Amino acid sequence: MTVETLLYEGKAKKVYATDKADVVKVSYKDDATAFNGVKRGQIVGKGAINNQMSNLLFAYLSENGVPTHLIEQISERETLVKKVDIVPIEVVVRNLAAGSFSKRLGVPESTPLPRPIVEFYLKDDELGDPLITDDHALALNLATASELDALRAQALRINELLQAKFAACQLILVDFKLEFGKTSDGDIVLADEISPDTCRLWDMETRKKLDKDRFRQDLGNVEDAYQEVYARITAIS
Amino acid sequence: MTVETLLYEGKAKKVYATDKADVVKVSYKDDATAFNGVKRGQIVGKGAINNQMSNLLFAYLSENGVPTHLIEQISERETLVKKVDIVPIEVVVRNLAAGSFSKRLGVPESTPLPRPIVEFYLKDDELGDPLITDDHALALNLATASELDALRAQALRINELLQAKFAACQLILVDFKLEFGKTSDGDIVLADEISPDTCRLWDMETRKKLDKDRFRQDLGNVEDAYQEVYARITAIS
Repeated sequence: MTVETLLYEGKAKKVYATDKADVVKVSYKDDATAFNGVKRGQIVGKGAINNQMSNLLFAYLSENGVPTHLIEQISERETLVKKVDIVPIEVVVRNLAAGSFSKRLGVPESTPLPRPIVEFYLKDDELGDPLITDDHALALNLATASELDALRAQALRINELLQAKFAACQLILVDFKLEFGKTSDGDIVLADEISPDTCRLWDMETRKKLDKDRFRQDLGNVEDAYQEVYARITAIS
Repeated sequence: MTVETLLYEGKAKKVYATDKADVVKVSYKDDATAFNGVKRGQIVGKGAINNQMSNLLFAYLSENGVPTHLIEQISERETLVKKVDIVPIEVVVRNLAAGSFSKRLGVPESTPLPRPIVEFYLKDDELGDPLITDDHALALNLATASELDALRAQALRINELLQAKFAACQLILVDFKLEFGKTSDGDIVLADEISPDTCRLWDMETRKKLDKDRFRQDLGNVEDAYQEVYARITAIS
């Protein structure tokens, strides 16, 4: 029997050590949280879907020149990834107004933005992941100015690639959150996941929400939405 | 008897029309509000102090090349200024951590910032004046990219000038809020006021707060603090 060393347990994933110092194993959970952990529940099958979907998308991004942490999927729920120090900045890209953007700025949901907007948030659950400006990131020593520029450029490139991918499955990529990590070589690579937990995805024709907003807003059929997105992605991959 | 036309009543000032289309009269009130209007009170003599102090500082900035709305003080509480369309962006400059910066980002009050930070806030009471990024300002059509650059540069220039002025009165300029307006010629000029309502000012030696935080935080001797700041400024002007 192997005893695994749990390095970190997040809201949706566990991270374990492996026998290689620069490789960790990520195990996806079915647990769902929203509103900074205030709302909690389970979405049956979410772990397996998010793991496999995220890996498909990371592989696609990697083929298109985006460096990522992905090494190899090892089971429905488990993947080996490069061990990274997570950059403590959550990067959000928005194509249409929704969520906190709509609420904070009084812009009705689904208003198209004149161009994609990149936002940085301080990754800090206790502070509720506040929005930050470049000046804040620099003052708090979260990143250098050139790293911020690189994050922004990479996020916009990923947005273009993902928009194309999702459009091919008749999905509108409304907005999404990315996390990046620094490898032992000092390279910044895309980390975390890309899934209906981290993206707002609407059906292109009906505008039906097919993402975690179904859980946040108690819209029902949460599992079906995750299954639907995954089925569409696998059908074209 | 002259009937005056009230154009606008804000939390701390009233604005009246004059017989010139491009000139308005500002009348400063003693009313004080905090936390977006949730806390309300009066600071006796504040209107007269803020009017006169703001005019001294606007004249000083103007002598140093900063265009402002100031035309002429006409009484203790009243001043003629250029009529402007207020740019709906509140510009905040911070030298030390305090207030919402400390609270939102978990940085202890009085932590020196590595360099002055300029922040933009959407001027919208209903939304609670949310922090915005440049991308937000552009998406909401609040200003052009070059206007944002100009606001930032002007704010940093004003910070240098005000820091020098306040240092000469043994005051630390912790942070302050500016508003700008567009004249009928399309020029962007400094508007609103500069006073203990809009600046955090600490005694250089004792670090005693001499600004509206005494009202916000129920520290007592609010009137004395405003008088003290005004006395120090007039002594060197």
